[in-house]
Amino acid sequence: MVTPTTAPELAEPHLRGLLASIGLDVEYVRGSGDTLYYRDTDGAEIPVLDLVGGYGSLVFGHNHPRLVERARELLEQQVPVHAQFSYHPYANELAHELNTVLRRELGVDEPYHALFGNSGAEAVEIAMKHAELDRVVRVGALRARVAETWAAVQASAPAVPADVTERLELPDTATLDDVVAAAARLNEESFTRAPVFLALEGGFHGKLAGSVQLTHNPGYRMPFSALAAQARFVPAAPGATAAAADAERAEVIVPEVVDGVLRLTVERSPVVAALFVEPVQGEGGIRVLDRTVAAEIRSVADEAGFPVVVDEVQSGMGRTGRFFAAAHSGLAGDYVLLAKGIGGGVAKSSVTLIRGSRYQGDFELVHSSTFAKDAFSVHIGLEVLRMLEEDGGAAYARAAERGAALRAELEAVRAEFPDVVSDVRGEGLMLGVEFADLTASPDPVLAENAAHGLIGYVLAGHLLRRHAVRVFPTASAPHTLRAEPSIYLTDEAITQFGSALRELCGLLRKEDGAALLPV
Amino acid sequence: MVTPTTAPELAEPHLRGLLASIGLDVEYVRGSGDTLYYRDTDGAEIPVLDLVGGYGSLVFGHNHPRLVERARELLEQQVPVHAQFSYHPYANELAHELNTVLRRELGVDEPYHALFGNSGAEAVEIAMKHAELDRVVRVGALRARVAETWAAVQASAPAVPADVTERLELPDTATLDDVVAAAARLNEESFTRAPVFLALEGGFHGKLAGSVQLTHNPGYRMPFSALAAQARFVPAAPGATAAAADAERAEVIVPEVVDGVLRLTVERSPVVAALFVEPVQGEGGIRVLDRTVAAEIRSVADEAGFPVVVDEVQSGMGRTGRFFAAAHSGLAGDYVLLAKGIGGGVAKSSVTLIRGSRYQGDFELVHSSTFAKDAFSVHIGLEVLRMLEEDGGAAYARAAERGAALRAELEAVRAEFPDVVSDVRGEGLMLGVEFADLTASPDPVLAENAAHGLIGYVLAGHLLRRHAVRVFPTASAPHTLRAEPSIYLTDEAITQFGSALRELCGLLRKEDGAALLPV
Repeated sequence: MVTPTTAPELAEPHLRGLLASIGLDVEYVRGSGDTLYYRDTDGAEIPVLDLVGGYGSLVFGHNHPRLVERARELLEQQVPVHAQFSYHPYANELAHELNTVLRRELGVDEPYHALFGNSGAEAVEIAMKHAELDRVVRVGALRARVAETWAAVQASAPAVPADVTERLELPDTATLDDVVAAAARLNEESFTRAPVFLALEGGFHGKLAGSVQLTHNPGYRMPFSALAAQARFVPAAPGATAAAADAERAEVIVPEVVDGVLRLTVERSPVVAALFVEPVQGEGGIRVLDRTVAAEIRSVADEAGFPVVVDEVQSGMGRTGRFFAAAHSGLAGDYVLLAKGIGGGVAKSSVTLIRGSRYQGDFELVHSSTFAKDAFSVHIGLEVLRMLEEDGGAAYARAAERGAALRAELEAVRAEFPDVVSDVRGEGLMLGVEFADLTASPDPVLAENAAHGLIGYVLAGHLLRRHAVRVFPTASAPHTLRAEPSIYLTDEAITQFGSALRELCGLLRKEDGAALLPV
Repeated sequence: MVTPTTAPELAEPHLRGLLASIGLDVEYVRGSGDTLYYRDTDGAEIPVLDLVGGYGSLVFGHNHPRLVERARELLEQQVPVHAQFSYHPYANELAHELNTVLRRELGVDEPYHALFGNSGAEAVEIAMKHAELDRVVRVGALRARVAETWAAVQASAPAVPADVTERLELPDTATLDDVVAAAARLNEESFTRAPVFLALEGGFHGKLAGSVQLTHNPGYRMPFSALAAQARFVPAAPGATAAAADAERAEVIVPEVVDGVLRLTVERSPVVAALFVEPVQGEGGIRVLDRTVAAEIRSVADEAGFPVVVDEVQSGMGRTGRFFAAAHSGLAGDYVLLAKGIGGGVAKSSVTLIRGSRYQGDFELVHSSTFAKDAFSVHIGLEVLRMLEEDGGAAYARAAERGAALRAELEAVRAEFPDVVSDVRGEGLMLGVEFADLTASPDPVLAENAAHGLIGYVLAGHLLRRHAVRVFPTASAPHTLRAEPSIYLTDEAITQFGSALRELCGLLRKEDGAALLPV
């Protein structure tokens, strides 16, 4: 591997030290398809099979010739990257293309609006901001309607029965005015409740100041808990979403008059701004959302009135065999987030899609970004869409077929080493290989690295050095290795990965941890 | 101008409507230097002088041939855009280059570490997260040290005088144990105080969920106030920073023993996570930070122990005649933020520089971004640095010279129309033209648009349609037009802008608002 320069490291020295300690501090000089190349000490390029694929960004592999060519064309044509506050017809075109796919795969019956950003985390924060604006608007509308209803009732001077004063903890001598004032006070408490985001346990939604609070992993989230509103985390289990929605329920008191007598009813006031869910959890260990839980999320959200944000930043853009991974469970989000893959491996871009009936046009006047919605990245996104959609969606079929072939190999490894590999799971070309817990291993290397959450990186270091295979654990489930290669993954690559895993599993079966470390 | 397509707009329809109403809904098809081109109805390219320059991103103009060529080279060489968790020597190289400039311009005497992101707002949120982690670490160290001191004092069993029990509001019969317990309770209140960010009034630091709370404009910030910690805003006036730091002061009680008697002293506990400041406020109306205020910020921060974050997202990268605009006032930040210009107009990238003695290495293990620190954008950043630094920094000299020429023209317009133009200000090629308040104009077009904060866009629409000059107001000071062209701004362009402004000022002097609107 390449000798590092001798200048002190100022760009993440601690990370570099960690990478060096497990042999991952390689400098890659070129990427093509599923291969990354580093140079050996003689300067020759050495290929590495890259199954990380930019954490799922590279459905067509590194530097796909057609996307590189499109990028060169755009540069040659001098498309204006910086033309903020002008008309961007290509952005509208991409929005329409995405709507076509949304309708086909998820059967949605209304157009979704598109807001552009620069990264997956930005897509999440745009969704958070929009959802909160929408919630505030809905609270405002409810407040106005309830106030009107109370005013009309007050004007009709109904009788105040004892159950009403009791309910409001007023003396039974309370007048109608007292009742109105007491209800207004209680209602205001509900209207001013702080917003809550629901997010699934194990989920990952980015690491910016706001979005990191939706990311379940406490190691990422807790050091920054004072910076943003806390989410309520929901287990991905039946009944859990309903319980969470109930726990965050706020009600307001609405009057009605029956036969000249005041009656009180209640309505729900919006507290939950949104629920965030990944159709396939990426960093949480490549976990496919259960269909029953997906259906429950949809029905609980509809009943309670809050939107569902489907985070397809890692799972979307075709890798699972459908454009939207949510198509597998049929979960139609009110918001749908795309990033990683929409940059085609050569651009940085994100899209936050929002259901028309949930969309707040005023948001456009209060949110903006210098880099977002630029011609370069939007045109690249359009080219990626064309590559996915053309030939009757051959790319999706290929993702499914290659995914099945890779999965068969991984299942075969698991069958040979059931004591070492505890699970193989995922969808299409988004697969995870979970290793058995090693924290109780008699081998100190294995036990200690498992205890420190580093075992996946130790396995990755061995696979890289010994087998020229690049694979990483998922960030929040470090004993699961992920494979997210391109749709061009070859049979040879699958065999290479399978052989590498078998050798690794043999070492783990022998509990030979020392053999996994750099010499 | 180009006829828009007929498909319903799904990518910000409300913004498009607003732009259309003032004639700004132009589709630019090409950008080169300080010129953007749209097509007329015959398909011919019509040039527009672009003084917006990507809100300051384009110090070398649109699609500078050398940067476009570098981008094409990088694409041809198939540099790996996606190679996360590997060694990125080019990132270290860029960090060192930036340190060289920091040392030269601001005389800093220790290396700054570099953390990479994808946008200016991401640079801000990385700074917010790092500053909070650092604050929590400092609180933890103080808590441990104070606890040790108390334990040692308690072991030495000093006498407890009346002033000590009184100070702690304890009865004079209180024992040493009572005193220790009371002090621990009070100290814990200080240790657990919520963090506060200070930010200058008029400042702009982005619009993501966390960063938008540092942006002073209430229209951008308040709808989302429940999503993140609120900042305390500080006027850019002498004494204000000290007053804000005092208002957020928290103290802990530390014991000492003098001649066998217990005494109480106090130490400050870190509450302020950081102070954010722009050397030249961009969106706040192109306002140069006063030198006295800059010096006070530095000394108050040093005394109170919190870091100063200098946001150079818009002002940095050479446009003011120095690489860092802060070099003009000598304000050396503990953090320095760069974005916009470091992308060279063809990439999206940001760098958060952090003073070595403030740097928390653990941050690297809890923060990451799929798109950040990529070879493409970092190599473009290096090329931009080379273009700025070569030939003895000729680019800086050119920015200063062109800025002075543009400013002279703007001052001349002001001299001719002192009733219309109330101020010309800025530094180098970051200039603002403030128009006199029009809210009391007898002309309803002027008065209403001024009242709604849209007057700057109305002026911009007129300048575009009538004079083919693209210029925008600053986002939070809408009666100030900004000019942030490239260092290649020609004398002809300056004359064109000057003439356009004179015609505009003539209409404003006549209070002929109708003439400013599209027919």
